[in-house]
Amino acid sequence: MGHSDHCFSEAERAAVYRAIAERRDMRHFRPDPVAPEILRRLLGAAHQAPSVGLMQPWRFIRIVRSDLRQCIHALVEEERQRTAAALGARQEEFLRLKVEGILTCGELLVAALPDGRERHIFGRRTLPEMDLASVSCAIQNLWLAARAEGLGLGWVSLFDPDALASLLAMPSGSKPVAVLCLGHVEAFYSAPMLELEGWTQGRQLEDMLYLDEWGIPA
Amino acid sequence: MGHSDHCFSEAERAAVYRAIAERRDMRHFRPDPVAPEILRRLLGAAHQAPSVGLMQPWRFIRIVRSDLRQCIHALVEEERQRTAAALGARQEEFLRLKVEGILTCGELLVAALPDGRERHIFGRRTLPEMDLASVSCAIQNLWLAARAEGLGLGWVSLFDPDALASLLAMPSGSKPVAVLCLGHVEAFYSAPMLELEGWTQGRQLEDMLYLDEWGIPA
Repeated sequence: MGHSDHCFSEAERAAVYRAIAERRDMRHFRPDPVAPEILRRLLGAAHQAPSVGLMQPWRFIRIVRSDLRQCIHALVEEERQRTAAALGARQEEFLRLKVEGILTCGELLVAALPDGRERHIFGRRTLPEMDLASVSCAIQNLWLAARAEGLGLGWVSLFDPDALASLLAMPSGSKPVAVLCLGHVEAFYSAPMLELEGWTQGRQLEDMLYLDEWGIPA
Repeated sequence: MGHSDHCFSEAERAAVYRAIAERRDMRHFRPDPVAPEILRRLLGAAHQAPSVGLMQPWRFIRIVRSDLRQCIHALVEEERQRTAAALGARQEEFLRLKVEGILTCGELLVAALPDGRERHIFGRRTLPEMDLASVSCAIQNLWLAARAEGLGLGWVSLFDPDALASLLAMPSGSKPVAVLCLGHVEAFYSAPMLELEGWTQGRQLEDMLYLDEWGIPA
């Protein structure tokens, strides 16, 4: 077989690269609901992620009770203040940023690692954190599929995981790793919001690549 | 604006879902080299990943020295034996699985977290492991782009991170998280290799979804 037998068409490849390029970590949402069939497709995309030893360590809790949404918002607000304090000199600048869209997004999901993970040794004996890597791949699948569907997603990690686990009656050994704000948006940011807001600038790809040894430019 | 203003065309959406559905964790490769311009596009896709506080904590070491490739293979082989021993009753069954394609794949990359991560507090005060989540999203981008290009990728996590860090002269505080085998393949697996080999079966999406509270079916 030739090299290109498994290659997508040029148009298909362009679509995949488009989703990758235009995906943004969104914090601004319109309140319109997400159609159930689209939500289903997005969760299906997440569920097709790779996982270490095929352990599929992703769990998604869909939040529909508005009192729960309010409580999650309050938890994130608490951590936002604590993070601001920890940032010292940049405290005020941080507090001016919009860091979540929990109360306005159409759908709110919590992604979590399940209990009982210690049973899974395959690929995790020396790197137990590979379960988080798998959940992250699932969330990235969902994120890219959401972009293709015209929906924005924001991964919020400003919360005390124990407090959130307790709020959602999560068992000992499980752990929430993301509050995911999903929904329609007025517009996708033209660049990462933290760049547009002047918080920081992304670095060039060249700075991330080494050849055979750490620090040797590729 | 209407709901579908940001939505990709039907053909574009299908391409994104196709990449997600047909991506596989590959262990069988043909030795043909990966074209430099394709490798560049794949690394560019990785670099467009989301990251916590825009810290971009991904570093990629491209392995071109064949002695290094041999050493990495030896490290993985050591951990393969240790994992087999830890698996007890399933030891022999595990040893029959093909768990890496390090010596045959066209390109070998090591993905790593950099040193100095403690400086980044944004989104990590309570969840410092969010840097690994970001690297994982970058690898998933690369993986999906590779599938669109007709290339296979396998994420190998069977290694002692300290030994691999030492082999690649990595500084204290940095950490390798993936040995990535990338290259041409004869065929993509029709399902996850661990299912085809009878190691385990994937679970249904329904088992992964809860409503408002852990354990409540969605």
